Amino acid sequence: MAKKAEKIKIIPLGGLSEIGRNMTAFEYKDDIIIIDCGLSFPEDDMLGIDIVIPDITYLIKNKDKVKGIVLTHGHEDHIGALPYVLKKLNVPVYGTRLTLGLVEIKIKEHKLSDIQLQKVDVGQMVQLGEFEVEFIRTSHSMPDSCAIALHTSLGVIFHTGDFKIDYTPIDGQVIDLHRIAELGKKGVLVMMADSTNVERPGYTMSESNVGATFENIFRNAENRIIVATFASNVHRVQQVLDAAYNYDRKVVVSGRSMVNVIAVAQDLGVLNVPEGLIIDVNDMDQYDDNRITILTTGSQGEPMAALSRMASSEHRKLNIQQGDLVVFSSSPIPGNEKSITRVINQLFEKGAEVIYESFEDVHVSGHACQEELKLMHRLVKPKYFIPVHGEYKHLKQHAKLAESLGMPKENIFIGQNGTVFEFGSDYGKINGSVQSGKILVDGLGVGDVGNIVLRDRKHLAEDGLMVVVVTIAKENGKIAAGLDIISRGFVYVRESEDLIDEARKVVKSVLDGCEQQNIREWSLLKSSIRDSLKDFLYEKTKRRPMILPVIMEV
Amino acid sequence: MAKKAEKIKIIPLGGLSEIGRNMTAFEYKDDIIIIDCGLSFPEDDMLGIDIVIPDITYLIKNKDKVKGIVLTHGHEDHIGALPYVLKKLNVPVYGTRLTLGLVEIKIKEHKLSDIQLQKVDVGQMVQLGEFEVEFIRTSHSMPDSCAIALHTSLGVIFHTGDFKIDYTPIDGQVIDLHRIAELGKKGVLVMMADSTNVERPGYTMSESNVGATFENIFRNAENRIIVATFASNVHRVQQVLDAAYNYDRKVVVSGRSMVNVIAVAQDLGVLNVPEGLIIDVNDMDQYDDNRITILTTGSQGEPMAALSRMASSEHRKLNIQQGDLVVFSSSPIPGNEKSITRVINQLFEKGAEVIYESFEDVHVSGHACQEELKLMHRLVKPKYFIPVHGEYKHLKQHAKLAESLGMPKENIFIGQNGTVFEFGSDYGKINGSVQSGKILVDGLGVGDVGNIVLRDRKHLAEDGLMVVVVTIAKENGKIAAGLDIISRGFVYVRESEDLIDEARKVVKSVLDGCEQQNIREWSLLKSSIRDSLKDFLYEKTKRRPMILPVIMEV
Repeated sequence: MAKKAEKIKIIPLGGLSEIGRNMTAFEYKDDIIIIDCGLSFPEDDMLGIDIVIPDITYLIKNKDKVKGIVLTHGHEDHIGALPYVLKKLNVPVYGTRLTLGLVEIKIKEHKLSDIQLQKVDVGQMVQLGEFEVEFIRTSHSMPDSCAIALHTSLGVIFHTGDFKIDYTPIDGQVIDLHRIAELGKKGVLVMMADSTNVERPGYTMSESNVGATFENIFRNAENRIIVATFASNVHRVQQVLDAAYNYDRKVVVSGRSMVNVIAVAQDLGVLNVPEGLIIDVNDMDQYDDNRITILTTGSQGEPMAALSRMASSEHRKLNIQQGDLVVFSSSPIPGNEKSITRVINQLFEKGAEVIYESFEDVHVSGHACQEELKLMHRLVKPKYFIPVHGEYKHLKQHAKLAESLGMPKENIFIGQNGTVFEFGSDYGKINGSVQSGKILVDGLGVGDVGNIVLRDRKHLAEDGLMVVVVTIAKENGKIAAGLDIISRGFVYVRESEDLIDEARKVVKSVLDGCEQQNIREWSLLKSSIRDSLKDFLYEKTKRRPMILPVIMEV
Repeated sequence: MAKKAEKIKIIPLGGLSEIGRNMTAFEYKDDIIIIDCGLSFPEDDMLGIDIVIPDITYLIKNKDKVKGIVLTHGHEDHIGALPYVLKKLNVPVYGTRLTLGLVEIKIKEHKLSDIQLQKVDVGQMVQLGEFEVEFIRTSHSMPDSCAIALHTSLGVIFHTGDFKIDYTPIDGQVIDLHRIAELGKKGVLVMMADSTNVERPGYTMSESNVGATFENIFRNAENRIIVATFASNVHRVQQVLDAAYNYDRKVVVSGRSMVNVIAVAQDLGVLNVPEGLIIDVNDMDQYDDNRITILTTGSQGEPMAALSRMASSEHRKLNIQQGDLVVFSSSPIPGNEKSITRVINQLFEKGAEVIYESFEDVHVSGHACQEELKLMHRLVKPKYFIPVHGEYKHLKQHAKLAESLGMPKENIFIGQNGTVFEFGSDYGKINGSVQSGKILVDGLGVGDVGNIVLRDRKHLAEDGLMVVVVTIAKENGKIAAGLDIISRGFVYVRESEDLIDEARKVVKSVLDGCEQQNIREWSLLKSSIRDSLKDFLYEKTKRRPMILPVIMEV
């Protein structure tokens, strides 16, 4: 039995008040385990940033306690930060078949070695220090997705992972409602549950519905069919393959991640690919258009993805033809609407027909809507509840949903990343916080771009820059005649020669003024140049380019 | 009667294959008239740009022909480019009451003089050269909106403007279906119709529906109510005022455009404001929270708008309080989703309740859905049809809709901005194109930012820059020791001193190499520095900052 004073700490390092970057630490006695290790994609104001990962300072400080990382499933927002985290914290990683298959691709890409991957089957228990970790099957837009139950001597913590409730999943592997019910009956101390779709009433449709739509589309199509979807949505991919097979079409696979995931999923037996169904793009010419399906990445309008390159005629091997039927089997992730629309417009302009969300049921979500969330709450009936995986508005709505089911308000905890949620057998509270934050990855740099660099990028992006180089004679300290002005991203230089000439005069008169007043301090000289030019340029153009004075002693 | 050889040219200069920037020229014999003169907001890749306006080169070239600008209504995408266009082409501007009221605000802001504004009533005819211009009442999300019928001796051209069909408009001024039917019966040569909502099946709800929702909200609210909407949606504003009045609340108006539009609309008698209903923000303290309504701008999450400043605690006079009820009476314009969500999250974090699109009927569109478009097509039954006001996908869907009503495919014309649509009494065709394009406005500069400047801004935004200054002795041409490297937006300089030191060495060795090979040509020197640094930095960081070598002869 747990002693009265014992407590468990739950510390989300990502995924609260944001979509993505899911990562939570659980600390009990001298052990820490981690559920998920995701990335997020940069916000609009994070110029030039590739991805964003959690700050794991707290884990590094407690390195010796960390027993392992447990993965719920293989989406980027759950595994994407692994390569970066494992470089600093090489602990065993536990996950199901497909999840680890996708992790392996990452590990290869990052050329990591000595990584300890431990495959787990659903239903299995793994002992990690004081935690007994149980993997429970759920439904989601990716096979082999799991909820996690952490059994401790203080009680059970149940983390839903990303989930929906699909009574007719493609692979027949239904969410393990029995086990969840059993846990609920025995008593769950804390539940953490996916809040992504908490704003949507009703139920999420079954993945099988999409298959019915595909059937219709494939039955009637007379030309090539191009289907764009997430590579990781293996069930969706399976349904495209099935429809192609049923209607005697070959499948060309396009896009690096699509090729990779299909290979891994097929290897692991998660994806069933009939012999000869998938053909090489170079063999496409051997078939009539009505015998071709192209399965591609780019459903979010990502500029470098295969579909976008086809749409803008930048794909080396695939062109959009008059009459092609393009299906966006996806829903726009907030922020991607305009990119997707751009691609759709380009496809229409090239004479393709395009089916997207507004018109047919070519996509279903992977996340539970309100009624499914209620079922989960009713089955698990936890003592305490932490809504996770969502922006603040989602967490708030999820808290309300729990209240509407009769949960006492004081048993529901909304926190931030870094918040320490502390639970004893008979209490729950927020108890301070640990260091957390967004680590920006730009190229090879992890964390070397921060607010100052971003602020400069933003400034440069808005109004460009003007570099002013002035030379000063070393021997007598006299300000030499040398003066050069260069601008980029500010105005068309050729059409603005007068403006640059005038700017030169402004700098000249500042230098003359400094000479007369015998000002020799460079920092003063620089700030005088900056201030005068700034005012001059703003008056003339109502713009504020970055002004970079450089003084060279010669 | 028109002679056989006579023809009319319709030349859209904005609004085709895009949302916004609506402007179309109509040319018949020696006269040109223009319908609308709108702006659009910059795309994501137009860094630092404030607004985008049409290229009017064609009109300038034919200056003497232009008889006037006719406005359908007062939205920015229909009048926003006027101040810029009138500076180059000062022709009379025709519009209804509120439309011109809003134009006057712009003219004052731009300090224009000698502008000829001609107020027109709905139902009125205006003779502009060879065109008889008829203003016909429609419904839209702004009072005094019109369709335009251009009567020529060749036939009638009917332009719907932005419209919906609202049988129960707030001001009781129903769209003039009788006149439209009459025109249709007599025969319309060409129709141009709004395509904005062509993807949506069914009917757009009446503006009155929103009033019913407001009633509910106001009846039950116990604290302050904050309603965000477009200032120009005067009917919506009226409904907020009505609800406040009915439930004994005072109204505080917040945001410059909200204040301006309410003043103009009240002046013109378009808005009915009971005496004493609107109070000054400074008098707010005299009332209990349940007697206050705040009517504000910011429904699109615009960072500088009043609501956004309240949400981020940057508003001088208004703070969000625990229990405030904030209503977004609006729907996100594509591209604004994330900004809006950011504001919603901030409001929730401050303890406000927030009602937005997902939950209640607090907004209806101002544009016709499919069934309304069908009614318009059936009433007007034009010989030729040009879908307008939409991205390519909308134009395409609208063409399909017209076909589904039995219109021959060859009588439907989809073009681009600049396309010359030519019609005779018995033919229609696309006949070449005129200069058109996007003129970018940045601060005071109109058209001085183009592709090169934008490309540089993008480059700077992604990876920042590195300035390398090298001095060369004038007398002997010897490359002097002077070398300075400055970077911005690239890496944290303090944490990357080693990298900068190494970069310095790379430049040094380039200079030494040039010295040895006796290379004195500056352009060569510059490109050598640029290439070597580029490779070095990419290898070290996988980033490509802009590299600006400056050589100073001293």
